Amino acid sequence: MTTTTTHAFDTAIDLAHNGDGHYVGQTTPEFANMVGPFGGVTAAAIVRAISDHPDRIGDPVALTVNYLAPVSDGSFDVAVRAVRTNRTNQHWVAEVSQDHGVTTTATAVFGVRRDAWSDTEVTMPEVPGPESLSHTTLPGPVPWMRNYDMHYAEGAVPTDSEESPSSTTTLWVRQRPARALDFAALTALTDVFFPRVFLRRGRMLPAGTISLTTYFHVDSAELDRQGTDYVLAHAHAHRFARGYFDQSAQIWGRDGALLATSHQIVYYKD
Amino acid sequence: MTTTTTHAFDTAIDLAHNGDGHYVGQTTPEFANMVGPFGGVTAAAIVRAISDHPDRIGDPVALTVNYLAPVSDGSFDVAVRAVRTNRTNQHWVAEVSQDHGVTTTATAVFGVRRDAWSDTEVTMPEVPGPESLSHTTLPGPVPWMRNYDMHYAEGAVPTDSEESPSSTTTLWVRQRPARALDFAALTALTDVFFPRVFLRRGRMLPAGTISLTTYFHVDSAELDRQGTDYVLAHAHAHRFARGYFDQSAQIWGRDGALLATSHQIVYYKD
Repeated sequence: MTTTTTHAFDTAIDLAHNGDGHYVGQTTPEFANMVGPFGGVTAAAIVRAISDHPDRIGDPVALTVNYLAPVSDGSFDVAVRAVRTNRTNQHWVAEVSQDHGVTTTATAVFGVRRDAWSDTEVTMPEVPGPESLSHTTLPGPVPWMRNYDMHYAEGAVPTDSEESPSSTTTLWVRQRPARALDFAALTALTDVFFPRVFLRRGRMLPAGTISLTTYFHVDSAELDRQGTDYVLAHAHAHRFARGYFDQSAQIWGRDGALLATSHQIVYYKD
Repeated sequence: MTTTTTHAFDTAIDLAHNGDGHYVGQTTPEFANMVGPFGGVTAAAIVRAISDHPDRIGDPVALTVNYLAPVSDGSFDVAVRAVRTNRTNQHWVAEVSQDHGVTTTATAVFGVRRDAWSDTEVTMPEVPGPESLSHTTLPGPVPWMRNYDMHYAEGAVPTDSEESPSSTTTLWVRQRPARALDFAALTALTDVFFPRVFLRRGRMLPAGTISLTTYFHVDSAELDRQGTDYVLAHAHAHRFARGYFDQSAQIWGRDGALLATSHQIVYYKD
């Protein structure tokens, strides 16, 4: 007898297609955040829904997800629609809704990559490898963090109430248990950072992502090469301005491939 | 007799409200780009439409604009809808369309700022003031650029066919003729940069913004303080990857206020 266990991440973004771009998923306790599920898993479900759509061409190039309201425990609908298909790219709109209304809106660009002059201009942060950095044994303040192996090189969750002049966090991270990286998993990883304001203030306080935008820099063949290895995730804020701060992030393969750049605006109360 | 001349930018984003969140505008030759109007002015028209909507609360906090197809010369419709209004923020979706279909989709977050711990962590680029930098007398390759006074501190439009190892551009810029900065004008300014790939390759080539995301860090009272003065605009790319590159930008007031951070993904052919 062979027993196949589905990875908790695949369960969390498992969708039933009801036809005409409508998909139904179920929240899972493993990916719960403070209120509602981890924003990264909701974004991943949207990417999964578009990827599964029969009209889809190419791979994700850009994604913006807006978090209007927490997703309640239970089933949720993901409606996706191709608004326009060009020769090499395709524009999508998406909405996640539940009985109480729309919880999430999104737009996405999928596209086909071509041979063209290419270059990575930004340099990868130089940090020790994941094996030489201590593993975060604390499960973190919320359930979803337990689904990731995290090795912080700088800017771990503050535990000493000390304010920091820097909002930068750099960590090696991969899914726990290890799972091959795909676009859904990469999408979730762009939201793997705890709120930058925690680091600056040396403590946890009310904060939540309002809008998340990611640009993908690889196609699926390049992404497949990452396998189940760690990626290097690097994030910092530019400005904390009276209740909203921004965050810019980079996700690097261990081989030096810049897989994605990602940005978000976050609500905070202090 | 008093003659009042409307600023070309105000003409370009002048909208007639047809009720129920539907607005009608007209393209103007002054803001023409290579194909269709300058992306910044389309984004500004969307901000103007939401700002004009009777249900709108607060100021822009986040905006994502997706460019699906060029806007043809003539009239265009801007349809905006508040999907959800929370206590301190409001989520909008928008679509620009013409007879031939949807040309632009967008999502926006408007919000109210509160007293909270605040800090600008990133530092303003140190460059000479606009008065000590030469004015770009070349009108630029496209009509819309004539609506801006530009003084480049680094990374001007390449004229010598020389490749550059850096995609960074820093310039002082303001509207020509000078006009008080408001959110529509700031939105347009986030797209004031020519494509970063021109700088790297030392020449112009086919390129166009696919998706633009801006985070606003000031409210209207803070923005009003900028008056008609120059702002410092700073942009660079992270990765050029087989037909798509990203750009991250900062828009600073001369007084050192970080007004906006902005990101875009750009199609290019080389």
